[in-house]
Amino acid sequence: MAKTPLRIGLIGYGFMGRAHSNAFAKVGNFFDSQYTLVREAVCARNPEAVSAFASRWGYASVETDWRKLIARDDIDLVDIAVPNNLHAEIAIAAAKAGKMILCEKPLGLNAKEAEKMVAAVEKAKVPNMVWYNYRRCPAVVLAKQLIDEGRLGRIFHYRANFLQDWTISADLPQGGAALWRLDVKAAGSGVTGDLLAHCIDTALWLNGGIKDLNAMTETFIKERKHQLTGKVEKVGIDDACAFLCHFNNGSLGLFESTRYARGHKALYTLEINGEHASIRWDLHDLHRLQWFDHRDESRLRGWRSIHVSDGDHPYLKNWWVPGLQIGYEHSFVHQVADFLQGLESGEGARPNFRDGLATDYVVDAVLASARSKKWTKVKQVKG
Amino acid sequence: MAKTPLRIGLIGYGFMGRAHSNAFAKVGNFFDSQYTLVREAVCARNPEAVSAFASRWGYASVETDWRKLIARDDIDLVDIAVPNNLHAEIAIAAAKAGKMILCEKPLGLNAKEAEKMVAAVEKAKVPNMVWYNYRRCPAVVLAKQLIDEGRLGRIFHYRANFLQDWTISADLPQGGAALWRLDVKAAGSGVTGDLLAHCIDTALWLNGGIKDLNAMTETFIKERKHQLTGKVEKVGIDDACAFLCHFNNGSLGLFESTRYARGHKALYTLEINGEHASIRWDLHDLHRLQWFDHRDESRLRGWRSIHVSDGDHPYLKNWWVPGLQIGYEHSFVHQVADFLQGLESGEGARPNFRDGLATDYVVDAVLASARSKKWTKVKQVKG
Amino acid sequence: MAKTPLRIGLIGYGFMGRAHSNAFAKVGNFFDSQYTLVREAVCARNPEAVSAFASRWGYASVETDWRKLIARDDIDLVDIAVPNNLHAEIAIAAAKAGKMILCEKPLGLNAKEAEKMVAAVEKAKVPNMVWYNYRRCPAVVLAKQLIDEGRLGRIFHYRANFLQDWTISADLPQGGAALWRLDVKAAGSGVTGDLLAHCIDTALWLNGGIKDLNAMTETFIKERKHQLTGKVEKVGIDDACAFLCHFNNGSLGLFESTRYARGHKALYTLEINGEHASIRWDLHDLHRLQWFDHRDESRLRGWRSIHVSDGDHPYLKNWWVPGLQIGYEHSFVHQVADFLQGLESGEGARPNFRDGLATDYVVDAVLASARSKKWTKVKQVKG
Amino acid sequence: MAKTPLRIGLIGYGFMGRAHSNAFAKVGNFFDSQYTLVREAVCARNPEAVSAFASRWGYASVETDWRKLIARDDIDLVDIAVPNNLHAEIAIAAAKAGKMILCEKPLGLNAKEAEKMVAAVEKAKVPNMVWYNYRRCPAVVLAKQLIDEGRLGRIFHYRANFLQDWTISADLPQGGAALWRLDVKAAGSGVTGDLLAHCIDTALWLNGGIKDLNAMTETFIKERKHQLTGKVEKVGIDDACAFLCHFNNGSLGLFESTRYARGHKALYTLEINGEHASIRWDLHDLHRLQWFDHRDESRLRGWRSIHVSDGDHPYLKNWWVPGLQIGYEHSFVHQVADFLQGLESGEGARPNFRDGLATDYVVDAVLASARSKKWTKVKQVKG
Repeated sequence: MAKTPLRIGLIGYGFMGRAHSNAFAKVGNFFDSQYTLVREAVCARNPEAVSAFASRWGYASVETDWRKLIARDDIDLVDIAVPNNLHAEIAIAAAKAGKMILCEKPLGLNAKEAEKMVAAVEKAKVPNMVWYNYRRCPAVVLAKQLIDEGRLGRIFHYRANFLQDWTISADLPQGGAALWRLDVKAAGSGVTGDLLAHCIDTALWLNGGIKDLNAMTETFIKERKHQLTGKVEKVGIDDACAFLCHFNNGSLGLFESTRYARGHKALYTLEINGEHASIRWDLHDLHRLQWFDHRDESRLRGWRSIHVSDGDHPYLKNWWVPGLQIGYEHSFVHQVADFLQGLESGEGARPNFRDGLATDYVVDAVLASARSKKWTKVKQVKG
Repeated sequence: MAKTPLRIGLIGYGFMGRAHSNAFAKVGNFFDSQYTLVREAVCARNPEAVSAFASRWGYASVETDWRKLIARDDIDLVDIAVPNNLHAEIAIAAAKAGKMILCEKPLGLNAKEAEKMVAAVEKAKVPNMVWYNYRRCPAVVLAKQLIDEGRLGRIFHYRANFLQDWTISADLPQGGAALWRLDVKAAGSGVTGDLLAHCIDTALWLNGGIKDLNAMTETFIKERKHQLTGKVEKVGIDDACAFLCHFNNGSLGLFESTRYARGHKALYTLEINGEHASIRWDLHDLHRLQWFDHRDESRLRGWRSIHVSDGDHPYLKNWWVPGLQIGYEHSFVHQVADFLQGLESGEGARPNFRDGLATDYVVDAVLASARSKKWTKVKQVKG
Repeated sequence: MAKTPLRIGLIGYGFMGRAHSNAFAKVGNFFDSQYTLVREAVCARNPEAVSAFASRWGYASVETDWRKLIARDDIDLVDIAVPNNLHAEIAIAAAKAGKMILCEKPLGLNAKEAEKMVAAVEKAKVPNMVWYNYRRCPAVVLAKQLIDEGRLGRIFHYRANFLQDWTISADLPQGGAALWRLDVKAAGSGVTGDLLAHCIDTALWLNGGIKDLNAMTETFIKERKHQLTGKVEKVGIDDACAFLCHFNNGSLGLFESTRYARGHKALYTLEINGEHASIRWDLHDLHRLQWFDHRDESRLRGWRSIHVSDGDHPYLKNWWVPGLQIGYEHSFVHQVADFLQGLESGEGARPNFRDGLATDYVVDAVLASARSKKWTKVKQVKG
Repeated sequence: MAKTPLRIGLIGYGFMGRAHSNAFAKVGNFFDSQYTLVREAVCARNPEAVSAFASRWGYASVETDWRKLIARDDIDLVDIAVPNNLHAEIAIAAAKAGKMILCEKPLGLNAKEAEKMVAAVEKAKVPNMVWYNYRRCPAVVLAKQLIDEGRLGRIFHYRANFLQDWTISADLPQGGAALWRLDVKAAGSGVTGDLLAHCIDTALWLNGGIKDLNAMTETFIKERKHQLTGKVEKVGIDDACAFLCHFNNGSLGLFESTRYARGHKALYTLEINGEHASIRWDLHDLHRLQWFDHRDESRLRGWRSIHVSDGDHPYLKNWWVPGLQIGYEHSFVHQVADFLQGLESGEGARPNFRDGLATDYVVDAVLASARSKKWTKVKQVKG
């Protein structure tokens, strides 16, 4: 049976552009689908650089204006991998053009933008997804299965943090190509939208909605040279953020993220404590899941370190053999595989834009609480 | 040279009474001092039980009324190992009687009590100490040395939690001998005074004072049978507590404790992130310290797991040989050794009652903030 | 500058055929080279299955007779990914046809075969390499760098094991497509050639040649049904193997492999103890290297767990960002990248067939020692 | 009920003299018995030093000649904690004097001596025990329980090693008080009798007798200054030793010990692989047991890290509360508690001298095999 081609137009070719392209290239080797992904075009402002990228990754053509890309008839799917401040405009235009849309996280610069994006894709009825890739780590999916099977019982605690240490030096500038995440205009916020958004997305998926929260943020280095202006400017992003919260299910949450935790490169950890069992996971050893089951025989209870590499673990039958680990990039491959599966079944894939909006509501509440220094209700997504 | 005998009167013979007695019995075997500890008397209400305890632990005599114990001339030091609601009365009486005092933590049922206790011992000028024993784990002392040497540079983050899971069953009653920690009248609070107090004491020691904080508490099981009345009664303690804070040195703090974290028996963990280096420790492997130093050669940076069992590690030259671990009880032995050393030097030992008051100020602020749902300033100890 | 195409003919499409194809497909996305790999043809006996494989992996054509593949002018490089008993015949024919050759490990069924293979490629002067992929795990390469820099000083000990548990059930048959590794005719030996060969290759690379050794082997399950004959037949392979040895540098070696170590899926561990420093690595967490340096300050010595994911770690600047791990399959990508680099520089890549022969000499000595129950000299590769 | 006093005469006051004394002092505080231990006398050649030791540890009297100690009527039990070359003579004399005997390991300088020691105690019918203390670590006892319950099924593999690094410096002298373990005359052998003997004792206990073995030993530093003669002398001990073996139950064994494994202070590890389950333990974290059970649900299999500190773990109900670890010294306390229990029940305690002889047979076979370079049968203990 001939496969249906799905022609991709990628916008942006930075770190995420590479991660997505790798996923587009690999998914067909490892996952069956009625669709074939075609790397049709890649778009970025610098013509030489985008051509080199296209050549390396096998994109058939290049564009330097994203509006032109969206206007092309030979593009079925627009993949948005540019700084946060461009997500909304591009996504809304792409929706109007009837394209399927994959969008990097966080969905909007803020929830207001995200609401418009949701409205646009829902009006246009185009398939849409947000790249919260950590939902697709096999160990995290295994956690989801265990929770959905009711094995944890009543949930008491959820805690997550995302710790990095790459911005500690005061000499690091802000803004520009590689450092747009330090520029509040491009990023919207600091670690809250960049790192905590991941923690929040996973938490909403695993543990349901957040009712209210109380946050603090901090900017340790107050001024940095800006690469676009060449001047020392005030830093507008948050360097660190932590919040307490209540989930709708009555459990307590504790979240933290920072880029000032010396010794942690990208340590995203999460832990859920239930009446009967608990789960822990961390990104630095993403191929393992820690599992404690109180129903085990008393003398023999202990945290199990599950090497998530067996054929009956999520996604793993498509890869190698037991004991051989996969890594970070595979979470993106899985996300694409699930997107294709969602197209095939007609049920769509998650997190979609509506799920991305839910996370943006939490992010907005976090930033509002940090400003007001008060407990803040979180707006819930309807439907 | 003949040693000076120090005659101990122990009040209470529960879990802590045993831990203290073991420390009194062992310290002379492993640490040199001009003092010899004499287990002179132990006091508790049940005459048979206290006699059995005295026999097992070598106390020369017994009392069933703590006032009589304090009145005895042959007692130099009163050790208070009874529920929290009795600390203040006993300690103040003992101070008036001119006794040295060791008191279990937390110092008072609340800071108001603790203030009176401080006033009493300072007026009486009697040596005093609070049993925050985790300061004496060799790995924690090593952490203190590294911090004091300035190796971490500017501190950005301090986080600590104390996780247990022993009260999850709703069938567990409250109150009475073994379960007074669940009875708010005896304990004053739940995990805040019991577990977080430890985390706070260590934090104040390692990272200085806390400026303000924002807390939440939760009682998951609202009613439990009370062992003293036989009736189902409302539970007054907090089952879980978490707070955000600012330290005086500008670093951010995140604290949590609970008795509902399935899989953790008594997992006290702390982590400090500084500009140059970071430290982690946990009580379940108390003989190890995790150390990350950014000044290590770039390719070879990594968290070092230091097996704190060498002769140049704190207290360890007094024990066995490298590689052979000591355990929980040794923290009490060290505390006694340091108390004796403080007597000998005339400088006293820490944490003294004034330090215990500082922790009580934080505990009070935590409980107040949880009630008011507001950021709350922490009262600072003067002097 | 136009790139030189290198047209690949792959023989075999099992587990290793997939791993190699993935490496061929990805290497150009992540590593620069003047060569472009072209997946020209894949060969296997089953026409339907090989066509499906070709379609999935983008091979332009298929063959069902390896002799025809080798005879084709449009094939530059022959990749041998078939059972061990076919390596020699194919490799020798490919060498005669002037093809570059990549060959799965172990090189020959035994050293005698391997000697002929070395002679053939050296006579034909064709580039050649053996797929001992674990040399290309970044953490293992980092270990090699540290050893080459002399940081360990005099070496005292080398120990390695490769532990699996997948053949414990007596119901597992031997022979046939997926289970040829249990059939002595196809595999030559059991764990010795399959697993220990990996340990030996790495050891020779990291620690130099082995002088003599003393081995034992065991076959725990003596008979298994054979899938090709349908009958219960004697098992000819070794289920477990261990040996003691002396390296040429005076250090002691201890090696073990088994498929009967319950709980271990594919746990390849190695440790090297030197005068000044030690190294540990294991395949279940292949993205980490354990490093102990006695020259660290005494109080702070400890095993460092290095998360090998930084830009200054081997190969890592070509992948993602610090903290984001790569996995098993990347070792094959690196091997291809290095092979291309070796072509470009004219210096070739290692392990070449001559290195593969060195490992076969050790494997032969291990099997001979196990039979004779005597210390056995290991034949050394000349040149 | 009045307790029966058991008057101890300790010979030797080095590291082991301290460890034993601590156990004698503590056991009554934590374990019930009809016996009371009385520290009656301690014996060593240096009068000042032995008096100081007696004072510190509460021994009522001192002796400087062990023969006098044995001759005393007020001594019920002789505890031998002197270098290996004195064990036999003292033990045989003590047996003749009708004393109960506790003897440090290894039992004799060699099996020939040990045979005489067994004959002496069995003729005299005196209670006897060898201080192989690691049998009494709670985690190891838990392992024993699991094996005895048949949970592992058929055993395939047993491996153990004991790795240290304290003799790497060539400047370290041999002989004299603290370094008699490096002097072959005092120690009999090097790591084989000192470290491997522990591994062997535990193995025989957990996995039954060893049938035959094949060993290698090495002395890395050939000459060291001797502290007694002041001259550089040939080193007679083995610095490292490894052996392969077959157990009587058909499983394979792999043992190694060394004092040249940089980074390991006293790392005794053992692992047992059975058909259904596996166990791992190491002395550097002696309070944990690693347990893998293949009968766990497939998706959730993993090594469990059991924190052996609960009331239903061996010995633990006598100590603290869950989560609070005990350490090295407690293994000695348990050994004394079990000895007293064996007296009370009349069944004796293990390992007795006969068990110690079994280990000496293995040690002798190891040394013989290393000399002959041949597989060597192990003599079995009768009865």
